[in-house]
Amino acid sequence: MIHSLENLIDQFNKLPGIGKKTATRLAFAILDMEIKEVEIFSNSLILAKKNIKKCSTCGNFSEDDICDICQNQKRDHSIICVVEDSKDIIAMERAKNYNGVYHVLHGKISPLNGINIDNLNIKKLIERVAKNDIKEVILALNPDLEGETTAMYINKLLKNFDITISKIASGIPMGGNIEYSDIATLSKALEGRIKI
Amino acid sequence: MIHSLENLIDQFNKLPGIGKKTATRLAFAILDMEIKEVEIFSNSLILAKKNIKKCSTCGNFSEDDICDICQNQKRDHSIICVVEDSKDIIAMERAKNYNGVYHVLHGKISPLNGINIDNLNIKKLIERVAKNDIKEVILALNPDLEGETTAMYINKLLKNFDITISKIASGIPMGGNIEYSDIATLSKALEGRIKI
Repeated sequence: MIHSLENLIDQFNKLPGIGKKTATRLAFAILDMEIKEVEIFSNSLILAKKNIKKCSTCGNFSEDDICDICQNQKRDHSIICVVEDSKDIIAMERAKNYNGVYHVLHGKISPLNGINIDNLNIKKLIERVAKNDIKEVILALNPDLEGETTAMYINKLLKNFDITISKIASGIPMGGNIEYSDIATLSKALEGRIKI
Repeated sequence: MIHSLENLIDQFNKLPGIGKKTATRLAFAILDMEIKEVEIFSNSLILAKKNIKKCSTCGNFSEDDICDICQNQKRDHSIICVVEDSKDIIAMERAKNYNGVYHVLHGKISPLNGINIDNLNIKKLIERVAKNDIKEVILALNPDLEGETTAMYINKLLKNFDITISKIASGIPMGGNIEYSDIATLSKALEGRIKI
């Protein structure tokens, strides 16, 4: 086989969710591109990796020491939304109805994957709550076992502060179907019912 | 938004079959990688693009002027299998029951996409058949409208040479289901029936 092609396929194959077949397709797409375009792609990998660090306040990815959201004085800095990952911030921002700031844990408690409390950005969250005038902490963790465990743990740590701690709602997604919903989702939806 | 991250997402987004969501996931995966790994990935793109050219005999991708298959004297150089794309050679080689050589057209006749005869590696195929002692040309083009048109056209060009021209069989795929087969596949399977 062609060594440099095999090598490129292997590199694509290392990315999450990219199997051998897709990796092959992508590698061939690179061969079909102009050398100029490939150079731009190649450089953008290095540039992104070198330029992007974690915001020293919230842990979000940022090109500056403090991220855009933490720097934005128009946002409500008394509400912190805790998320697992920077990707979740992008999703939340897309929804356009949250104006507070964030705190990125960079994972969730998952002993099976070797991730415990010390690997997560939790200590800085407690410091933020202790040092600033925070009114509410919203836990926006994925509603799975590890997410719930992490939420419970953070809830315990923050209990003694005079703040509201909330959790985003679990339930049937918009456009979803009661008939085909799983039992866990349905019971969460019932538990979390709100008066109309 | 973070400029160099947006840029990297755009680059992944340009690849075929990679939508905005997958591109975002891949870009974040890059940020999670070690800088050393990202450099290897970045270099492998440039290396593949710079090192790989087209075999001057068959048009297959190759790091040398003549590809491994055309150089291999253990293969039967009197049988040429015509394929649309280098990717098809990888698939054929995986099947491990073909020992001839190949010819890559780099596309198929498709006027709607602006690809006509002159854009394809057909002239060199005719030269190969004229200059060498060829016994058989197997047309292994995808069984769609453009593939069939291309096969018919090549068949016409090669008709006057004293060679066998064949076409790979169309029919129900192994493990497939007659009940759920489309009409075109079923009628091809019937047409191409063989005595047992």
